[in-house]
Amino acid sequence: MNYRIDGLQYANWSEKIFRQMRQGGLDAVHVTIAYHETFRETVLRIEQWNRFFEAFPELIFQGFTAADVAKARETGRTAIFFGAQNPSPIEDDIGLVEVLHRLGLRFMQLTYNNQSLLATGCYEAEDAGITRMGREVIAEMNRVGMVVDMSHSADRSTIEAAEISSRPIAITHANPYDWHPAKRNKRDAVIRAVTERGGMLGFSLYPHHLKDGSACTLSDFCEMIARAAERYGVQHLAIGTDLCQDHPDSVVEWMRVGRWTKRIDYGEGSATNAGFPPMPDFYKDNRDFPNFATGLASAGFIPSEVEALLGGNWHRFFAEGFEPK
Amino acid sequence: MNYRIDGLQYANWSEKIFRQMRQGGLDAVHVTIAYHETFRETVLRIEQWNRFFEAFPELIFQGFTAADVAKARETGRTAIFFGAQNPSPIEDDIGLVEVLHRLGLRFMQLTYNNQSLLATGCYEAEDAGITRMGREVIAEMNRVGMVVDMSHSADRSTIEAAEISSRPIAITHANPYDWHPAKRNKRDAVIRAVTERGGMLGFSLYPHHLKDGSACTLSDFCEMIARAAERYGVQHLAIGTDLCQDHPDSVVEWMRVGRWTKRIDYGEGSATNAGFPPMPDFYKDNRDFPNFATGLASAGFIPSEVEALLGGNWHRFFAEGFEPK
Repeated sequence: MNYRIDGLQYANWSEKIFRQMRQGGLDAVHVTIAYHETFRETVLRIEQWNRFFEAFPELIFQGFTAADVAKARETGRTAIFFGAQNPSPIEDDIGLVEVLHRLGLRFMQLTYNNQSLLATGCYEAEDAGITRMGREVIAEMNRVGMVVDMSHSADRSTIEAAEISSRPIAITHANPYDWHPAKRNKRDAVIRAVTERGGMLGFSLYPHHLKDGSACTLSDFCEMIARAAERYGVQHLAIGTDLCQDHPDSVVEWMRVGRWTKRIDYGEGSATNAGFPPMPDFYKDNRDFPNFATGLASAGFIPSEVEALLGGNWHRFFAEGFEPK
Repeated sequence: MNYRIDGLQYANWSEKIFRQMRQGGLDAVHVTIAYHETFRETVLRIEQWNRFFEAFPELIFQGFTAADVAKARETGRTAIFFGAQNPSPIEDDIGLVEVLHRLGLRFMQLTYNNQSLLATGCYEAEDAGITRMGREVIAEMNRVGMVVDMSHSADRSTIEAAEISSRPIAITHANPYDWHPAKRNKRDAVIRAVTERGGMLGFSLYPHHLKDGSACTLSDFCEMIARAAERYGVQHLAIGTDLCQDHPDSVVEWMRVGRWTKRIDYGEGSATNAGFPPMPDFYKDNRDFPNFATGLASAGFIPSEVEALLGGNWHRFFAEGFEPK
């Protein structure tokens, strides 16, 4: 089936964006509902989504299982799957993993740039790997069917997570470091550790992750995917756009500093480039998702591979990852 | 189908009690998970239940829909349905109704003895009826499929709730005031308002609700049900034992005073009878549930009526009440 699935977005969602998802033919989108939010604050985000689901039932609904992707296609809607980019929603309470899974959380990053209770983030100077609680939480996530996402984690922590997890894990949104050496992009050994165990890499469109940044071309982006497919196998690759649409800079600041510092931290930006950089021309928003099909075909992928990269691989991974064991 | 369903329990649950549920042939039990708990505290109760479900999968599992009662029967287990005896779990946030429904909350009392944000409790001197927020929450409960339970509410509030609710409501655990004039038992006009609109009354075994208290006989209890069936129709009646097993008195105190007073309040007890009174001989715990079948037959009910009273009516009500509209 030629599903179209985006493996990560964090937008200032609105009817406009939901309509753009439909225009882009998105059957499913993994949306971030928490960066630094506590459990109660995460529930408030879920409440906001519930209002969206009630207000726009002809455009979106909440996805819980891979079968909901098929349901989305059949009913001409987009299934929205929840994820957290940080373990802050579970606080120090492992019991919240199952509670949040029941509420639909299907992905959780073990870190967001910084050290967490579970693992080390990609901006820390030292990476001590998976913590005691981290091992317990990975086992619990494996049990209930919540995907371990290491997009913002450090190398050793990511490799250990792939080894410890009894289910394949994901890097939902990043690119190979070899292609563009950003702090958030992933080194070969890291991508291998994840994909060799059945895990997934979703390619990101966040300009700081792209060669030439906002000026990156569709051709360059799809060539990167072609090289990755040769190394890691096309079945482990997909798209995770990291679309961050319509947000004011204050939200970018929340993502970067939360409550963990009183000073501003520019993340992958800088004082002179503090805001969110412009998206590349070939992917401005959900309506451009079909451009990837064109680009991937030009990069030499056959139609069945294009289908796998645009959604088939995520769909298989959702089916393997979301149900309790 | 001859289902056996208990419409309310609050016990100090343990493997022992779950085994007693199986010995009593209970297919489903509505269990109280909150009296005065905030949202976060209620989630902690759910986490405790998740531990039980994980530890004793051969005895119990969480029920979400009426179909889970059939699943319980087929698999020889007891389906556990969550309820709250107070709206404290939703705090002042209507969005928590849907969140808690997703987590399995299928009943919520609008009050527990005292005035709440939604309605007036049965111990207040003045009953001003359903509040502004109460009307909104009833509509939301109707939408998502959460049963309005008025067991501990005052008369006017209960009658108004029955009128305002677009779905039948319940008094899960109480007896007719005419039979035993306890503050928590229900006057004829109240029971009529509920049952005439398709609602349910579950008969309680809490000794303070019984004629002759702990000395009440099975015959007297079932005669009361027979008289109620003549007045209100057997299809609106069932059992809600209010079983409060193995709790220390400190828990009875929590139920009665929560954090709303610094003084002790004895509820239906007194300073000289502060603890939980002994249960009547014919119903000590779940193992005695089959005694009701014998007693109801002796009181003149035909087999199909006995089946309806022991579980068939609750099953129908669950089917009508638990799904979103």
